Amino acid sequence: MKNIGVLGSTGSVGTQTLDIVRMHPDKFNVVFLSAHSNFDKLYKQALEFNPDLIHIYDKNQIDKKESNKIKILTGREGLLELCSYTKADIILNSIVGFNGLEPTLKILESGINLALANKESIVQAGHLVMDIAKSKKLNIFPVDSEHSAIWQCLIGEVKDNIKKIILTASGGPFRELSIDDFPNITKEQALKHPNWEMGKKISIDSATMMNKGFEFIEAYWLFGIPIENIEIVVHPQSIIHSMVEFKDGSIKAQLSSPNMRLPIQFALSFPERYTLKDLNFNVSEFSNLTFKKVDLEKFRCVKLAIEAIRLGGSYPAVLNVSNDLCVDFFLNDLITFNQIPDLIEKSLDKHEYINNPDLSEIKRITHSVKNNLKEFIRK
Amino acid sequence: MKNIGVLGSTGSVGTQTLDIVRMHPDKFNVVFLSAHSNFDKLYKQALEFNPDLIHIYDKNQIDKKESNKIKILTGREGLLELCSYTKADIILNSIVGFNGLEPTLKILESGINLALANKESIVQAGHLVMDIAKSKKLNIFPVDSEHSAIWQCLIGEVKDNIKKIILTASGGPFRELSIDDFPNITKEQALKHPNWEMGKKISIDSATMMNKGFEFIEAYWLFGIPIENIEIVVHPQSIIHSMVEFKDGSIKAQLSSPNMRLPIQFALSFPERYTLKDLNFNVSEFSNLTFKKVDLEKFRCVKLAIEAIRLGGSYPAVLNVSNDLCVDFFLNDLITFNQIPDLIEKSLDKHEYINNPDLSEIKRITHSVKNNLKEFIRK
Repeated sequence: MKNIGVLGSTGSVGTQTLDIVRMHPDKFNVVFLSAHSNFDKLYKQALEFNPDLIHIYDKNQIDKKESNKIKILTGREGLLELCSYTKADIILNSIVGFNGLEPTLKILESGINLALANKESIVQAGHLVMDIAKSKKLNIFPVDSEHSAIWQCLIGEVKDNIKKIILTASGGPFRELSIDDFPNITKEQALKHPNWEMGKKISIDSATMMNKGFEFIEAYWLFGIPIENIEIVVHPQSIIHSMVEFKDGSIKAQLSSPNMRLPIQFALSFPERYTLKDLNFNVSEFSNLTFKKVDLEKFRCVKLAIEAIRLGGSYPAVLNVSNDLCVDFFLNDLITFNQIPDLIEKSLDKHEYINNPDLSEIKRITHSVKNNLKEFIRK
Repeated sequence: MKNIGVLGSTGSVGTQTLDIVRMHPDKFNVVFLSAHSNFDKLYKQALEFNPDLIHIYDKNQIDKKESNKIKILTGREGLLELCSYTKADIILNSIVGFNGLEPTLKILESGINLALANKESIVQAGHLVMDIAKSKKLNIFPVDSEHSAIWQCLIGEVKDNIKKIILTASGGPFRELSIDDFPNITKEQALKHPNWEMGKKISIDSATMMNKGFEFIEAYWLFGIPIENIEIVVHPQSIIHSMVEFKDGSIKAQLSSPNMRLPIQFALSFPERYTLKDLNFNVSEFSNLTFKKVDLEKFRCVKLAIEAIRLGGSYPAVLNVSNDLCVDFFLNDLITFNQIPDLIEKSLDKHEYINNPDLSEIKRITHSVKNNLKEFIRK
């Protein structure tokens, strides 16, 4: 029986995590649940899974009528208290965006294994996250399908034998769109993803392919592979979730129908594998798998991400917060689709390199980058 | 430094094995070489690789002028002497056909690890081969690309977690041919394989897809998987060499350009991987991977093979020798392409089941099946 804590339990990854717990009541026990503001859903989950604690970030959302039955923590302090709740064998962090970083660091500092869906943690502060994980000898189990695939391909293999990591990308909704039509991309078009159903922020990241840029950075940190040995390949069907090429030319790939439950479950079940119903090899669905190079002129966000991790230091953090804000601007009709990479590039250009920034420096950078970007917009 | 003995060193697998030794002179040392009848080539190999012993099956081929410089064994006795040459850390058996079985058994009985390219060993006598390997706690390292792929996908994984083995098949030259045109298939057509360059016997086995039937039987024995959990899938590009599906729905695949050196080298280098030049992930070559079900009405040999292993006992041995002889008949214009499965089916029908046959029984069966088939032909 594994004791699991879930941060972000009312979101897409969180609810699918609880689906998995529901399927394997003999394997998993929920020790806490945490949500940002959806108290109703959180409370319902608590009634079903009976955790020791629940946490709501926004305490104003608590419904007084129901709150006496269970211990409820609130705010940043409550969140960090959960992250050191050592009754948890593993904590799944599926908080969205920048706010996932501090919990990630706290979980690892507390000596607890981490199932990581918050890729911003690694994008912004891969050096901090990996340093703590290494010094505490903890595992970081990736929850997204690509890194889970790479991890699965590496099981039983030796790191020194890796020649290349081949990160597959669906290419998003604009894979086939001419670069000439990019200036006219609308919000509605950008929110439609061909293969995966996702939240708004991540849908835009998929449309710009910044998502893949972030995954590139994540792969760099999680697997300790040189930048030049990571390649992004467009694979529109999203069946092969990523590949690893070894120095003898052998390539291992991990495949499945697009389904987030598999990487979530594997992060929790490892080293075991538990049955997942309805997920099967399917000749007709897998009938045509294609690959092509990514067009870095169309998808400038990928280029910017690779450049940011190559420069290192504080640049990936700048990349991340700039993208966060630009996506927000785009979703609020303040900028066009093409202005997303434009503004991120400006933001990176303006930034002055800081080596090995700590959490407070990253917070400060985040703050000043946001201010600068808001100024750009006002002009 | 690994000491390697090579049976069948002048054949296709044998010469590629020596290519690999040549590439890694610091990793591999050849302790013996053996060939059936090509003494010239064998002798040249001996001069280059300086083995302790060489062996030629047909002693009449020995060139007297050269034979004094090196110790030469001959005949069946010489061959079996090699198979107990314990200075070898591993022996690669790439003898073609029925004659590979006795060496396979002898190698394992002698306590030596086996790199197995002679699939007939397992097809005819999987029960004997696996029994010895198990009791001596020896490894059988598969040399063909499909079983190497399955093996690589299973590294670090637990057997109990396997849901299915998905054996890929190129489908051979008649994949797209209408069943109506099968009666008119000529020898020349059947000898042309789209993806791999191979000997005549194996080319015909690929055209009838009996080769895949044999590999099905081999997978059953090597990986200990129930028959109903092995599936053959047609994958014309021969890039994905096979797959394993686990019970959580995760599928691992092993890929590369079609190249026999990779599985040969991995069988010898395991658990290491050594650099193999010119074998790389290639977006354009891998641009379109397709899968479809195998047509068991067109490729009756596959059906017969699955039936033979389902019946078990002596049936797979009957299947193998019947196929050997029928391919020979076809290559000598004695029967048509469609008569290959016809005759094999007759041969299986006529056979009376023997449980757990030993080597002498298999030899006896082989002999009587051959006589029966020759009679069919005379009629």
